[in-house]
Amino acid sequence: MFRTILAALLIATPLAAQTTGPITLENFGSFHVGGRVVELSGRPVREYLPTVGGAPLRIDPNGGHVVGQMYAQFMVPSPQRGTAPLMLWHGAYLTGVTWETTPDGREGWQQFFVRRGWATYVTDAVERGRSGAAMSPEIWAAPLHLPTSNPWERFRIGDGAGSFARGTLLPGNQFPATPDNYMSFMRQVVARYLDTDADVIAAYIALLERVGPSVVIAHSQGGAFAWQVAQQRPDLFRALVLIEPAGTGVVAEAARVKDIPQLLVYGDYVDADPRWSVIRTNARRFSAAVREAGGTVDDVDLPSRGISGNSHMLMMDRNGDAVAALVQDWLAAKGLWR
Amino acid sequence: MFRTILAALLIATPLAAQTTGPITLENFGSFHVGGRVVELSGRPVREYLPTVGGAPLRIDPNGGHVVGQMYAQFMVPSPQRGTAPLMLWHGAYLTGVTWETTPDGREGWQQFFVRRGWATYVTDAVERGRSGAAMSPEIWAAPLHLPTSNPWERFRIGDGAGSFARGTLLPGNQFPATPDNYMSFMRQVVARYLDTDADVIAAYIALLERVGPSVVIAHSQGGAFAWQVAQQRPDLFRALVLIEPAGTGVVAEAARVKDIPQLLVYGDYVDADPRWSVIRTNARRFSAAVREAGGTVDDVDLPSRGISGNSHMLMMDRNGDAVAALVQDWLAAKGLWR
Repeated sequence: MFRTILAALLIATPLAAQTTGPITLENFGSFHVGGRVVELSGRPVREYLPTVGGAPLRIDPNGGHVVGQMYAQFMVPSPQRGTAPLMLWHGAYLTGVTWETTPDGREGWQQFFVRRGWATYVTDAVERGRSGAAMSPEIWAAPLHLPTSNPWERFRIGDGAGSFARGTLLPGNQFPATPDNYMSFMRQVVARYLDTDADVIAAYIALLERVGPSVVIAHSQGGAFAWQVAQQRPDLFRALVLIEPAGTGVVAEAARVKDIPQLLVYGDYVDADPRWSVIRTNARRFSAAVREAGGTVDDVDLPSRGISGNSHMLMMDRNGDAVAALVQDWLAAKGLWR
Repeated sequence: MFRTILAALLIATPLAAQTTGPITLENFGSFHVGGRVVELSGRPVREYLPTVGGAPLRIDPNGGHVVGQMYAQFMVPSPQRGTAPLMLWHGAYLTGVTWETTPDGREGWQQFFVRRGWATYVTDAVERGRSGAAMSPEIWAAPLHLPTSNPWERFRIGDGAGSFARGTLLPGNQFPATPDNYMSFMRQVVARYLDTDADVIAAYIALLERVGPSVVIAHSQGGAFAWQVAQQRPDLFRALVLIEPAGTGVVAEAARVKDIPQLLVYGDYVDADPRWSVIRTNARRFSAAVREAGGTVDDVDLPSRGISGNSHMLMMDRNGDAVAALVQDWLAAKGLWR
């Protein structure tokens, strides 16, 4: 069944009429969920004059601070065709912007799935973007920041160490990697904290409890979180699409997610990359454990399906919509779209 | 003319049919603008294992870092009725979420203006939200974080010092201040850096250059930035709506903004507040200098127009839509809406 759908996709790439032009939303908006209050004391009071024409301000930071909350923006199309809400969870050093646009200004997967009738939720993981970050180092240790060379060389865009300085790409790479486009991408890269995983997982659970059982499409670090959240609360997932997950759940507890239909997708150049090949091997080990327990994980290696040249940021690649269409068709085949 | 429109508003509060129910967008999306690259060197390499099932990661932070960029999300309704793009610029310790929702889950001013046919741009100022923050203290000094008591007592919600602990409100206050709602508000509060004003102003100019001359609605710190940006590039403003600006432009150069129609709005309890009364006096001094140079600044004191109980976060107050309607009618009266 899945193979047939993919074959049809590769032949025709049919985009229905509603996938371009104006889009009608029932509503849109945002909210924050989760978090906890941490009491701080003994910190110095700060005084400053905010701006020209302002009035002096005295900030006493002692007291309760809200920590670990998470931001979500929803867009509910009219009519809806998805039978469950659809969530887009981003990866490390990134925010929900991952899904909103591409470095060359095309529409992102957010628009792709909204246009196909999914009530779509885009989140910023705890600590990043509009979720805010707690005081550092008092509450969380100082975060890590990526220099411009790092994603180029680590996300399978350039051809290995030194490729950013050389400006060279992996052959056939589909990332829209002109210098201007790459700078557009780097503008959306943010810092990442290392001691927040428990807060992130708690907030994703709070999100799913608020919205209800959902289809979750998760990228990279978000994929690791998604598997771990699903192991705690499998009842809150209708399906799980793992786009190059950078980690897994706990293999010994793989049976906990056996009732969730799962799709695992990796792009190109994985075998030749010492780090991504290890990560995919781990993901396949976890997937095998899920299958062993009676579950379903459909494992898609994009190049072997004729979709080649994909970087780690495959939702931004020039052929990113072909990957989204593969996901859409898989969800439809699972009966989650009408 | 303006007085007549306000009178009609206060009598009828007419909401046209398109202001509820589904909304049609021509498109929506986001982008980042501006920023600069700062070279870092001599920083230690960090190594860590990201997550279960991941692969060890080595981050060398030395090299170029993108700093000072700004995030914008746009929603373009169909049909459009505004004759220029409309921007919503938030205040200090906040992000664009200010405009997306209210603490009790109603629609925000973003939806208000999109529903009325404005192509609407919501931004996160440099350093906040999805704009990302530069490495600290290497590039920017450590930011300030607000404890939960601060906005309650400073934004004219509670009745002065100690009111957060008491849980008491200014009489007649319209902020939706149940404990749950207030926590929803605090979840969107973020840190604020003190050494980023030049980056913020440069990014707002880059935004306006990209989008073109716009109507700018700016709140609090955003109002101070708006006046300062307008003094540098008055050609990029079609109108300027200052919602409780927390600062001004440079009085000696007020003539530079004399050709921009301006609306100045403050809410309730201002005279009795030692800090806000100073801030409003400064704003009125700047406005008088604009008028002296031949410009127009319409100065609205909401209580004297029959709109009472407004906190500093008046777009979130229970009567926030009445204030938005006042702004909308003023823009229409200026010929900017058809």
